[in-house]
Amino acid sequence: MTPEEFRQQGHRAVDWVADFLAHADRYPVLARVKPGQLSDALPACGPEQGEPAERLLADFERLILPAVTHWNHPGFMAYFANSCTGPGVLGEMLAAALNPNGMLWKSCPAVVELEQVVLGWMRQWTGLPADWFGQILDTASVGSMHGLAAAREAADPNSRTKGMAPGLTIYTSEQAHSSIEKGAIALGFGQENVRKVPVDVEFRMRPDSLAEMIERDLAAGLRPCCVAATVGTTSTTSVDPVPTIGEIARRHGLWLHIDAAYAGSAAFCPEFRWIFEGCDRADSFVTNPHKWLLTPMDCSVFYTSRPDVLRRAFSLIPDYLATADDPRAVNLMDYGVALGRRFRALKLWFVLRAYGREGIAQLIRDQIALAQELASWVDADSRFERTAPNPFSVVCFRYKGSDDDNRRIQEKVNESGEIFMSGTKLNGRFTLRLALGNAATGRRHVERAWELVRAAV
Amino acid sequence: MTPEEFRQQGHRAVDWVADFLAHADRYPVLARVKPGQLSDALPACGPEQGEPAERLLADFERLILPAVTHWNHPGFMAYFANSCTGPGVLGEMLAAALNPNGMLWKSCPAVVELEQVVLGWMRQWTGLPADWFGQILDTASVGSMHGLAAAREAADPNSRTKGMAPGLTIYTSEQAHSSIEKGAIALGFGQENVRKVPVDVEFRMRPDSLAEMIERDLAAGLRPCCVAATVGTTSTTSVDPVPTIGEIARRHGLWLHIDAAYAGSAAFCPEFRWIFEGCDRADSFVTNPHKWLLTPMDCSVFYTSRPDVLRRAFSLIPDYLATADDPRAVNLMDYGVALGRRFRALKLWFVLRAYGREGIAQLIRDQIALAQELASWVDADSRFERTAPNPFSVVCFRYKGSDDDNRRIQEKVNESGEIFMSGTKLNGRFTLRLALGNAATGRRHVERAWELVRAAV
Repeated sequence: MTPEEFRQQGHRAVDWVADFLAHADRYPVLARVKPGQLSDALPACGPEQGEPAERLLADFERLILPAVTHWNHPGFMAYFANSCTGPGVLGEMLAAALNPNGMLWKSCPAVVELEQVVLGWMRQWTGLPADWFGQILDTASVGSMHGLAAAREAADPNSRTKGMAPGLTIYTSEQAHSSIEKGAIALGFGQENVRKVPVDVEFRMRPDSLAEMIERDLAAGLRPCCVAATVGTTSTTSVDPVPTIGEIARRHGLWLHIDAAYAGSAAFCPEFRWIFEGCDRADSFVTNPHKWLLTPMDCSVFYTSRPDVLRRAFSLIPDYLATADDPRAVNLMDYGVALGRRFRALKLWFVLRAYGREGIAQLIRDQIALAQELASWVDADSRFERTAPNPFSVVCFRYKGSDDDNRRIQEKVNESGEIFMSGTKLNGRFTLRLALGNAATGRRHVERAWELVRAAV
Repeated sequence: MTPEEFRQQGHRAVDWVADFLAHADRYPVLARVKPGQLSDALPACGPEQGEPAERLLADFERLILPAVTHWNHPGFMAYFANSCTGPGVLGEMLAAALNPNGMLWKSCPAVVELEQVVLGWMRQWTGLPADWFGQILDTASVGSMHGLAAAREAADPNSRTKGMAPGLTIYTSEQAHSSIEKGAIALGFGQENVRKVPVDVEFRMRPDSLAEMIERDLAAGLRPCCVAATVGTTSTTSVDPVPTIGEIARRHGLWLHIDAAYAGSAAFCPEFRWIFEGCDRADSFVTNPHKWLLTPMDCSVFYTSRPDVLRRAFSLIPDYLATADDPRAVNLMDYGVALGRRFRALKLWFVLRAYGREGIAQLIRDQIALAQELASWVDADSRFERTAPNPFSVVCFRYKGSDDDNRRIQEKVNESGEIFMSGTKLNGRFTLRLALGNAATGRRHVERAWELVRAAV
């Protein structure tokens, strides 16, 4: 593809994206293909000679689009919804063009420095400590794994050379994201050494249970190492009582990791700053701009108040990557598993500037208000019951019937092509879950979702 | 940013990228900023209100570009060079617009199925076994860590629940990429349990030493677990003798992991298929389209012949992500640490189709031929000596003087702004390293690099 062909196809693609941004709801939100349908439609072998550029976009529309579940559809209310935004797409396009690898400061100063600057803006806007060190990773799963690895390094500095010591234990709630457990498995802690602390009626970690479990493990000769608290759990968006948890962690010298992957963005609204209460004492912290913060996948922010520990856990400098020391020339490869680092800060910078703090806060505020309205509609219909509080933009509820009844409702709604909703289990029962968060989702989409749910009974 | 504003700015950005693709050499290849210079030029706090869209692109040009080290410059000959290509940029733009998360088949069938299809094309084109399972990860570092995790699962199925067992050992060569050791540290193997097998005069792992080390460890009661061989080492692009290594691994029941991050792309040329000799018996294998294969960062391919083991190591299905079982609806979240999965296959599909196998092979062939020419110029100048064989597109050589002399040459060349070269250590001595690989690098750029090196003596 010559630069001139790129220019031509690029303009076509931009026009397609502009139309898509304006009318993402022209497609069914949930892909209607059968498993294997796209695979079968594609040639089993690639072309020996290059194909004309215009075919790429044509096949994208013809073959790929029907197999896409449209996360950018205003009716996408499953998992944690996200948004495609113009500034985010521009950022990705330019990042792909420059295509730098910011593993070292020298290998692309812009990648490293812009990352530090925008993560500073985010700390300011959400009230997090100014002196935290930040880096952008791909996902919160990987970020949490890095937090646990640093926790291990702090608890047992020999683990780096000697290997994982037995008996190090991790505490997180029954409602924590599976990534905490998965990170612990990957790092060699072992699933058995992840304690699932019970939750209260609002699905928040119970500090009394946490304290008891730590005492019990200490008495058994184990070595409590880390507490991972959640600000906005996946099923119900509950906020663990971080101040009390942090106090317990401090008392026992445990690493405090905070998973604020989804809800962290709400702290852009001053009235939601409370969610970070106690987080200023965290040792590590993750939040995902690629969820609620209008930034394309992937962009997960990892902060730590103890970068020295993280660096001890991960730094390994081969001869071919040795550079001169300079305190302002940070080599981000020293702080994690991945060596390569793409220019993710660019899209985040564009998004933060194009919307501004207040613009982002207003969008988030609107989504939360819509969710509160939806909750009131659920409460007003005696056939339904809410199954959890809804502090943010997610509403959990169920039809007062069997699990199967509720699954049928979910299926019927999802078949509509207008709304995609998810489900979860709470207190052993299947529950429906409408998760707002796409920037284009308005009152009429939420009304329509509720209408479809009721019609599906 | 409204869709119409996006359209306007998107067209501007496409024009910028088209010009950039045509003239990436108009910028100095190595950024000329001082550490902290970009940070100091940016406001310490982000804007409270959104800013007009056109300012984003203006500031991108004014502030960001001077701080960019231009990986897409034809004079970029450091590390492993990569290329920005039109189809790659189009793919990233559209992936950012759809912004799907392919964690589950259902959450975006297109992400999952296109990934399987294009990785099938790559297997065919490079002669790798058709029945391997593939997935795209961010980096080879993360891919190798996944390979080691699967190796652990195979050697000690209890490790998942009980935690890392002591005494599991990993074997890789002294010339292996640091990511093998880093992965082992992260997973809890411990740095002490990574054996660095000595290399021969061509920097290839010595199978006799490997066998001895395994025997010694077995005799000491340790549990050899994995051999990580390299096809194209980082410093010298050496190819480990995989058939013999694989035979040793088989004899002892060790997992065989192959790191072909850079050189794997050469197998697109039939005359370089030999590099994968013996790899058909690998248990896991990584290669990076974001290096030599014209695809933007990040795109690293991970294959395994034992997906069941990888799945046992990583699968963890929370209630909110439970789906119906269907053998054709693969849930890729079951095969790794990260839950989120962006649509990386799209750009790779575009690249493979736009160039075709033969188009890609020809570009790679040309780079290798240029590197051979460069090597012959080095050999012809008695002031210089080559310090390693150069089977691919990287030439290692040194001025017959001190390490400091050679560092001075490197610095002087890099200050030119025309060429960016790296260095490494071989047999304890600093050596210069010119790594070709950018698609725009032609004979005149290599001639110029050699001219600058000689002038810097």
